[in-house]
Amino acid sequence: MARYFEDVSAGDVYELDGRYEVTREEVLEFAEKYDPQPFHLDDEAAADSIFGSLAASGWHTASMCMRLLVDDFLEPETSMGARGVDELRWIRPVYPGDTLRVEVEILETRESDSRPEMGHVRTQLTGYNQDDEPVIAWKAMGMTRKRDAE
Amino acid sequence: MARYFEDVSAGDVYELDGRYEVTREEVLEFAEKYDPQPFHLDDEAAADSIFGSLAASGWHTASMCMRLLVDDFLEPETSMGARGVDELRWIRPVYPGDTLRVEVEILETRESDSRPEMGHVRTQLTGYNQDDEPVIAWKAMGMTRKRDAE
Repeated sequence: MARYFEDVSAGDVYELDGRYEVTREEVLEFAEKYDPQPFHLDDEAAADSIFGSLAASGWHTASMCMRLLVDDFLEPETSMGARGVDELRWIRPVYPGDTLRVEVEILETRESDSRPEMGHVRTQLTGYNQDDEPVIAWKAMGMTRKRDAE
Repeated sequence: MARYFEDVSAGDVYELDGRYEVTREEVLEFAEKYDPQPFHLDDEAAADSIFGSLAASGWHTASMCMRLLVDDFLEPETSMGARGVDELRWIRPVYPGDTLRVEVEILETRESDSRPEMGHVRTQLTGYNQDDEPVIAWKAMGMTRKRDAE
């Protein structure tokens, strides 16, 4: 059963089952395309950087966590996109060989003033590595369909 | 000549020369990998969505603008990464066929308390489409190397 606006409440926590294995190949591929800074592309440059060794682009880390969200949290029946994100933080570097997982906490739910078929849902996402260290976090402003609207 | 911490001041505006052409193929490729929601993958689903037609993932739009930043603003000699992003907003959908460009405004510069070789630079990034409509914006918390540190 899909999770509609009416089904989520502030304080709810979802520990998503999915895992994302970060590969060197994909770290390089993403960086070459979207973030070709030396510390995302080159081992020697990365060793001299704040990251210490080759690290994933922060946008890549966000994108990998988004994939976990789409697979295990957002649903085609109810997810209507997002207006934006606040307090996106790259807490620790993500390295090839890491495995990511995601937790989602519902922060706030609010009816839409202008669109009766949906509501606003603010969530706190936190991405962890295999050592249960947080590596990324953000607050999302999602739009979720109401069951009543059907 | 590279732009060091000492070379930027609050209020400076940079209109980047680069342009990013958004292709249908790349929109689909990114969505399949990182954000496989129907409105990013399927024309019919997108027509029924808030986007009206097939639209790029918001994380893809951010990544394309990051590429413009890396090509025309961030420099290997001075860019030391970023701690995070505030107020990331997806203002308008980005569609295949759009062409993106980026403007950067320096919001604030601040010495680092703990790391004398760098300073913090807060920037406002805005991404525009070919009609000069803003499509994405965020405030970044970047770290920039000082010239004195060399």
